[in-house]
Amino acid sequence: MSDSATRPRPAVIGIDVGGTKSLGVVVDADAEVLVQEKWPTREGAHAVTQMLAELSAELADRSGDDVEVRGVGVGMAGLVDNAGRLRKAPNLVDADEFAVTDLLEPRVGLPVFVDNDANCAARAELTVGVARGVEHAVLITLGTGIGAALISGGGVVRGAAGMAGEPGHMLVDPNGPECVCGLRGCWERYASGAGLAHLARVAASEGRLAGVLAELGDDIEALHGEHVTRAARLGDDEASAVLDDFAWWVSVGMANCAALSDPELIIVGGGLVRDWDLFGPRVHGLLNEVLVAAEHRPQIRVEPATAGEAAGAMGAALLAAVETGLRSS
Amino acid sequence: MSDSATRPRPAVIGIDVGGTKSLGVVVDADAEVLVQEKWPTREGAHAVTQMLAELSAELADRSGDDVEVRGVGVGMAGLVDNAGRLRKAPNLVDADEFAVTDLLEPRVGLPVFVDNDANCAARAELTVGVARGVEHAVLITLGTGIGAALISGGGVVRGAAGMAGEPGHMLVDPNGPECVCGLRGCWERYASGAGLAHLARVAASEGRLAGVLAELGDDIEALHGEHVTRAARLGDDEASAVLDDFAWWVSVGMANCAALSDPELIIVGGGLVRDWDLFGPRVHGLLNEVLVAAEHRPQIRVEPATAGEAAGAMGAALLAAVETGLRSS
Repeated sequence: MSDSATRPRPAVIGIDVGGTKSLGVVVDADAEVLVQEKWPTREGAHAVTQMLAELSAELADRSGDDVEVRGVGVGMAGLVDNAGRLRKAPNLVDADEFAVTDLLEPRVGLPVFVDNDANCAARAELTVGVARGVEHAVLITLGTGIGAALISGGGVVRGAAGMAGEPGHMLVDPNGPECVCGLRGCWERYASGAGLAHLARVAASEGRLAGVLAELGDDIEALHGEHVTRAARLGDDEASAVLDDFAWWVSVGMANCAALSDPELIIVGGGLVRDWDLFGPRVHGLLNEVLVAAEHRPQIRVEPATAGEAAGAMGAALLAAVETGLRSS
Repeated sequence: MSDSATRPRPAVIGIDVGGTKSLGVVVDADAEVLVQEKWPTREGAHAVTQMLAELSAELADRSGDDVEVRGVGVGMAGLVDNAGRLRKAPNLVDADEFAVTDLLEPRVGLPVFVDNDANCAARAELTVGVARGVEHAVLITLGTGIGAALISGGGVVRGAAGMAGEPGHMLVDPNGPECVCGLRGCWERYASGAGLAHLARVAASEGRLAGVLAELGDDIEALHGEHVTRAARLGDDEASAVLDDFAWWVSVGMANCAALSDPELIIVGGGLVRDWDLFGPRVHGLLNEVLVAAEHRPQIRVEPATAGEAAGAMGAALLAAVETGLRSS
């Protein structure tokens, strides 16, 4: 009895590496957050490795002597392969082909598991969020770009190389603008924060959005998504019309995902969710207009993520918890 | 000993209902085909039910007394739900909301299991074809339209409602032509047999394909895919250029599927596979040009299906075999 009382509590670290901030947590076997810490993200693969090692040490220290950390999970934007290598990272400086697991494991002396940040967020939604008990779903994060995760059989699908869940780079317009990934007409060019800015600039160049543009001294390039959402909140009909376009494009990509994977739930996360009230209700209706045989299938639910700001870090910890045997899912 | 010698050999029936022909097989627990039969497909849900009942009886009869049929699997083009109802069937007359399982079970006195025909073909490829041992794949059938199946974790993904695997109706061009499904700019409008005809007519209306068109008395509407493939085989450069366009569109949809699901293998089936030598080699190269981060991921193999003409019927039988406990996969 006394032996079990002094046995350390097993736990794992999860760190979500964002473009500007990195959030780390220590999580126990019950997915309870014991410690949380937010640091600025450093630039470049070497500095990020250093930061991950230091943040892991800090989180372990703060957990106290009665906690035994068994592994570290890391979530990062971009294409992460099954070996824990960040292969392509459009939103991090100098981080293509960044061998996170190989570089970090010797530094922290613990097993390290890396996955795409949206895959991590999906794990959090499955365990403590809106996707509890859901078998088939798609998570879409609408931020500067689009992140995503494919959920099948109640778990995140990593795919053959670990790179599943990149619908942001599905072609939706052969005549569309060039994407940060080097391709053309990607969904992300229309349905992300950058996409909303693009739609707004197209509208402005066609003589719409006059009110918004006047406030920016008629500088079309200065036009961003926030200008549109703010104006729409103030009752600007032309701004609302741009958000209608935006909702249509959001729906198109969701319908493309649904045509292939037939989810019961589409979870929407990312920074743009704060304006969900402005375009979400339109997405519900438009999705049925652009999804094949919508009238012959059950209604797909589209709901904002609920696991909160720490979802990515929590999901990275859950990955480590499963991989180290601390949890079964 | 004598008891086991007289015990009947368990088996299942599989029937693939095609647009014009239906192929039925009886398959044993080792996926061995015992009997095979091809009938013309009748028109309308009532007549198809009648045909399925009669064909099942004929197949069971021909199997002989030492075979005990335990169930019937049926593969059909269109969106089939988890309850065995054909919800939407663009290629069958009068067959939307066709409750196949409910109508057929009392007629045959055996459990009936229904799935999309491409899902069935994928089961055959996983068991006896090119996808043996493969965990993550996409099967694409290029026929009059596009059929498809999503394979994850070594099995076919049916999705929340049973309707996964319909990438033919992903939007790939917001300004594209109307599709048989009622939407606009679907992948199927470009990358199927009907799609090749569309691309050929666009080329002809722009003054290309003069040689092919002359043979048709300059009747653009008479132009079909086979005219293009035949001319390309005879060395017509303009026909080859149309096949280049076609290969690009085939690659785009494959890349869209791969962006979401990250397969190691894309299996190509359907009638157009007979001309794979004309456009397949181009698809291999083009896929890497339109797939996100292709240079940072393993090469995705693209290979013709190998399970043969009876793949759909075999896969329908495999579905019944698994559902009745005759096989584990």
